Amino acid sequence: QCDLTGWWENELGSKMHVDAVDSQGNFTGEYHTAVSSAQKPIEPSPLLGSQHLDEDGQCTFGFTVNWKFSDSTAVFAGQCFAGDSGEEVLQSIWLLREKVDSLPNDWKATR
Amino acid sequence: QCDLTGWWENELGSKMHVDAVDSQGNFTGEYHTAVSSAQKPIEPSPLLGSQHLDEDGQCTFGFTVNWKFSDSTAVFAGQCFAGDSGEEVLQSIWLLREKVDSLPNDWKATR
Amino acid sequence: QCDLTGWWENELGSKMHVDAVDSQGNFTGEYHTAVSSAQKPIEPSPLLGSQHLDEDGQCTFGFTVNWKFSDSTAVFAGQCFAGDSGEEVLQSIWLLREKVDSLPNDWKATR
Amino acid sequence: QCDLTGWWENELGSKMHVDAVDSQGNFTGEYHTAVSSAQKPIEPSPLLGSQHLDEDGQCTFGFTVNWKFSDSTAVFAGQCFAGDSGEEVLQSIWLLREKVDSLPNDWKATR
Repeated sequence: QCDLTGWWENELGSKMHVDAVDSQGNFTGEYHTAVSSAQKPIEPSPLLGSQHLDEDGQCTFGFTVNWKFSDSTAVFAGQCFAGDSGEEVLQSIWLLREKVDSLPNDWKATR
Repeated sequence: QCDLTGWWENELGSKMHVDAVDSQGNFTGEYHTAVSSAQKPIEPSPLLGSQHLDEDGQCTFGFTVNWKFSDSTAVFAGQCFAGDSGEEVLQSIWLLREKVDSLPNDWKATR
Repeated sequence: QCDLTGWWENELGSKMHVDAVDSQGNFTGEYHTAVSSAQKPIEPSPLLGSQHLDEDGQCTFGFTVNWKFSDSTAVFAGQCFAGDSGEEVLQSIWLLREKVDSLPNDWKATR
Repeated sequence: QCDLTGWWENELGSKMHVDAVDSQGNFTGEYHTAVSSAQKPIEPSPLLGSQHLDEDGQCTFGFTVNWKFSDSTAVFAGQCFAGDSGEEVLQSIWLLREKVDSLPNDWKATR
């Protein structure tokens, strides 16, 4: 069964730790990003999300990262796959919402 | 100050209720979607997320919806704005991750 | 039948003109954006794209805008719909690719 | 200088050929996709796009693929980079617009 608990690293060198997943599939953790578009120094930031608990171990999941060093918020949506050599691989796509000063600038707020 | 607590409705007729936001900016709630690409009947589904607590009341936020009627997960990233008539408006962009059976089909899993 | 030829305006106030669509569905035109994240003044920029020629007049289409005032490129993908009052409405989603100086910055290049 | 002319292959096994790029940066070509969500057999499909002609050879580009075997249209936006071993690498992000039957289904039309 897919269990997100533990450390994960992506191809950019960002790492995250997922704490215990509860019986609803909810989890907390910490995201250590390797990349940033913010001015301030990077800090580990809390993450909060949820995964399905399908028996086939190919669960989809999502989580939010509330950046401590900027007014931005990121969300990730993905799925857990069993890789060729048996280990689990996460595939995900993200959105980064940056704060803009007014509604007319909303069009450019999301990467 | 931006407070996500309460009921919100989008232009598609989907509604969500955000319960109390805690001192970290974390919140739970329930999403009542008006649209679905799943086979089963729509059910209200739990949401879980986080918002910034900026004093200017233009906070960014993100949340995850763990659909109860499908193996999919949605994430939303957005920002709260004060509208022309004083009320708050949420602008957000979403990703819907659908479960696929294997890694080669990952390319088409996200809308 | 859906015909993209003519002037179109979006909710941000950006306008575009599509010249004659050829027998393959290809077209050229000019995009007058109302919004920009670039430093230089906005200039009308050439667009180039293609549409399906389905008989039901609900064609999908795509086009590229090669911005003359920045090193960025935008792409739009959408569909033409007949609105309630009979006129045609275009729905589209875009990506804006901004130039970055090196591959490690690729992650943030697209809005 | 970045020149898109020639054959390119992505990590999914899809290939494209870009014909000569003209003095405006416009080009035509053919896309041979390795993956599809359509019912009909895959066929090579025409592409049409535009690239910047920056002297530093790190141009951004965009193009549209008008699928011959489905009513869908894809757009790609990206940038050309010189890789470590000197060869050119393209990084791009795509949107796939699928035809939907009516405006209320527009929300799910784009992957």
